Amino acid sequence: MSKIAVVPGSFDPITYGHLDIITRGASIFSEVYVVVLNNSSKNPLFSVEERVKLIQEVTAHLPNVRVETFSGLLMDYAQEVGASAIIRGLRAVSDFEYEMQITSMNRVLNDEIETFFIMTKNQYSFLSSSIVKEVAKYGGNIGELVPSQVEQALKEKYKH
Amino acid sequence: MSKIAVVPGSFDPITYGHLDIITRGASIFSEVYVVVLNNSSKNPLFSVEERVKLIQEVTAHLPNVRVETFSGLLMDYAQEVGASAIIRGLRAVSDFEYEMQITSMNRVLNDEIETFFIMTKNQYSFLSSSIVKEVAKYGGNIGELVPSQVEQALKEKYKH
Amino acid sequence: MSKIAVVPGSFDPITYGHLDIITRGASIFSEVYVVVLNNSSKNPLFSVEERVKLIQEVTAHLPNVRVETFSGLLMDYAQEVGASAIIRGLRAVSDFEYEMQITSMNRVLNDEIETFFIMTKNQYSFLSSSIVKEVAKYGGNIGELVPSQVEQALKEKYKH
Amino acid sequence: MSKIAVVPGSFDPITYGHLDIITRGASIFSEVYVVVLNNSSKNPLFSVEERVKLIQEVTAHLPNVRVETFSGLLMDYAQEVGASAIIRGLRAVSDFEYEMQITSMNRVLNDEIETFFIMTKNQYSFLSSSIVKEVAKYGGNIGELVPSQVEQALKEKYKH
Amino acid sequence: MSKIAVVPGSFDPITYGHLDIITRGASIFSEVYVVVLNNSSKNPLFSVEERVKLIQEVTAHLPNVRVETFSGLLMDYAQEVGASAIIRGLRAVSDFEYEMQITSMNRVLNDEIETFFIMTKNQYSFLSSSIVKEVAKYGGNIGELVPSQVEQALKEKYKH
Amino acid sequence: MSKIAVVPGSFDPITYGHLDIITRGASIFSEVYVVVLNNSSKNPLFSVEERVKLIQEVTAHLPNVRVETFSGLLMDYAQEVGASAIIRGLRAVSDFEYEMQITSMNRVLNDEIETFFIMTKNQYSFLSSSIVKEVAKYGGNIGELVPSQVEQALKEKYKH
Repeated sequence: MSKIAVVPGSFDPITYGHLDIITRGASIFSEVYVVVLNNSSKNPLFSVEERVKLIQEVTAHLPNVRVETFSGLLMDYAQEVGASAIIRGLRAVSDFEYEMQITSMNRVLNDEIETFFIMTKNQYSFLSSSIVKEVAKYGGNIGELVPSQVEQALKEKYKH
Repeated sequence: MSKIAVVPGSFDPITYGHLDIITRGASIFSEVYVVVLNNSSKNPLFSVEERVKLIQEVTAHLPNVRVETFSGLLMDYAQEVGASAIIRGLRAVSDFEYEMQITSMNRVLNDEIETFFIMTKNQYSFLSSSIVKEVAKYGGNIGELVPSQVEQALKEKYKH
Repeated sequence: MSKIAVVPGSFDPITYGHLDIITRGASIFSEVYVVVLNNSSKNPLFSVEERVKLIQEVTAHLPNVRVETFSGLLMDYAQEVGASAIIRGLRAVSDFEYEMQITSMNRVLNDEIETFFIMTKNQYSFLSSSIVKEVAKYGGNIGELVPSQVEQALKEKYKH
Repeated sequence: MSKIAVVPGSFDPITYGHLDIITRGASIFSEVYVVVLNNSSKNPLFSVEERVKLIQEVTAHLPNVRVETFSGLLMDYAQEVGASAIIRGLRAVSDFEYEMQITSMNRVLNDEIETFFIMTKNQYSFLSSSIVKEVAKYGGNIGELVPSQVEQALKEKYKH
Repeated sequence: MSKIAVVPGSFDPITYGHLDIITRGASIFSEVYVVVLNNSSKNPLFSVEERVKLIQEVTAHLPNVRVETFSGLLMDYAQEVGASAIIRGLRAVSDFEYEMQITSMNRVLNDEIETFFIMTKNQYSFLSSSIVKEVAKYGGNIGELVPSQVEQALKEKYKH
Repeated sequence: MSKIAVVPGSFDPITYGHLDIITRGASIFSEVYVVVLNNSSKNPLFSVEERVKLIQEVTAHLPNVRVETFSGLLMDYAQEVGASAIIRGLRAVSDFEYEMQITSMNRVLNDEIETFFIMTKNQYSFLSSSIVKEVAKYGGNIGELVPSQVEQALKEKYKH
């Protein structure tokens, strides 16, 4: 069995919470494709290229992880790369409901590709990219929340 | 007893989930007024006129349903048309809390008009207009989620 | 239109929260049947007869409310009395999910009879029969939570 | 890669919701071990043997599924059979929190074995063994909720 | 013991719900600093100065309450004023999760300053500044939801 | 200001989650009374005396903490000892709602004594006495979840 799983997200930027999910996925599946979805109308802090590069750096030690970018429907991407599963991290209730909604929609589009949810490590269960950015913006210490490359990149974005 | 119920919403556009709630309301109340609220600062995909027209088309088989539009407080509209009830669909927890907040506010404004919540059919319990638009935008199949008139209208909005 | 609604519950004993829901239902529907369900294996404080009597006393001023008891499936009872709706009060999230589960099941059994949820008045949104009993047991003041007949009945149950 | 997943539960009795999760797990993992946990102090309707037999019957068409029983800690069982993953179905919020609690505990015991959550099919998202038993007890129709063997077994349990 | 607590918020504008929390905090702590956080990119209705002035007016009867404004990380402010606690009001589930996220982040920044949550009075448990503004905008009666000074200020903002 | 806070619970047995809350409370309030409530009809594993003794042992290093036991309404106890606050730990959503219900009831009984909620440390956010007992019963390692005295006491309860 050679099973491919996709870990989708906006990763603006990647946190230790994301990395925890990617690592757990990579221990079960033969290959993990981390995909930066490029659909959102939201104004990102990091460009897609910057985000891909940061993910590549912090997952460099995981040989079965590759990082890609995609514009369009996740299920089209997943089918294209031959994935048998989507992996999503779960933190809190609102996450859960949003994820249920997306998964339900994805099943309508393609019921062959299963979505697996993995619980984020307790210490990251309230961590998000946006809260990291908010803290970094005002010079707070984020060393426990993101890898050092990301910390550095955030400092550069917010330096004046 | 001749009881009027109001089904308010933004309906941008109407989905099978909305239609399920309207149909259930129309089986209990003498008359159901579907009202497209025109207050939001959100940038809608369909104009109010387009939304009204789509609702009229997909509820044409329900003789006791009429479709209107209103700018202002829902309770003012409800009182104006002589409604005795508001009907709202319930899907998930976040819905529920938002609805409780609105209902609580509406009771302060007018405690004579009761709000009834109806549970959306299971198969539509994670369906929303925004997720339908997201899928339609990238060419995904939405035939199970919206009536064919709406599917057609979405295709035209997103064709290039 | 002569519409009958059923308000089911265990009512052990009836609180101001229940009474609020019954009153709101009675203002919309021609007739409201309050039904004490007698299925539970839980050990009730009040007998079914005592519960029916207390509900009758505190709803005596509502001419279109009658109180009955039933053993079996709620939907069988609702069909038997010719109801077109079930009315349930909603307080908090756990309520909501339990109610969604029951309603979903009831639809499988009979999709003709609709369940309407009504939001409990804010001041009763955390009120339950069991918390009232817990307080009454230790002599706490429950005058704001239950009608005086119920307060009296609780005092007699817990007097030594 | 030959990956084993464990699907634990009390299965008293197995429903279409459980079967949906088992089937989805079996499409990803090489082998799925369904394990009836025999720890609970709750009074079950079906004996462990009856439950195992019903699961075997309704999963007979899935060649990579086997059914076992176990008394003790799930993680001990999972390690014993060489599993790399636990699979759990997710329905609603209360489920979610209970599952988070169990998973968090299981990680303390053994962080090598990952728990994957799979969303139950929408139409079963409010289905549970206990609600099926409640309906079967009063003669309601449960044909849409459980396989025919289980329906038959429930009828025999509740016949007089 | 001379303990200072900080009550942070955007207070755009202050409601009876906020005032309830401030009053409860002021009955326990020696001093309460209400701080209008000035970070948000959201477009506020009232300027920071207007918000501070309204809070000062409606808390004028509470001698141990002072009102300030701050740009930056709450924990930096709290440390600066020598606070030992942050006080936050809790209304509903989504609040709760957002608050857990913020508190978790704040602990990473400074685990010496504790966050205490106080439950909003039942009658304000679904009240928010944004719903008050929505109602005021369309001329609805908000006299039960905000102090008269705030009601007046809203009328002036929305008069044409 | 000499403020007393009460930390109520069943503590069957005390976990690191409880200890975290007690410690945080003791850093703000002059005195903290941990009170083992002795009302429950639930069958406890440890006697009230054993529970008090374990709490005393694991809080021995906190000079402003004392441990007591009480049968009756918490608010009666709180008033008796002259407390100005109740402190409760918050973990997850179901906790939250239960706590809101209890707090709402307690306010009806005595609105002078405020309830403060403190968020449990992330790593204990899914920890409970009952899950600890379940694991200990089957010989799982609970060293990260409870102090060593409690671990020892559990081993003795479950040894054969």
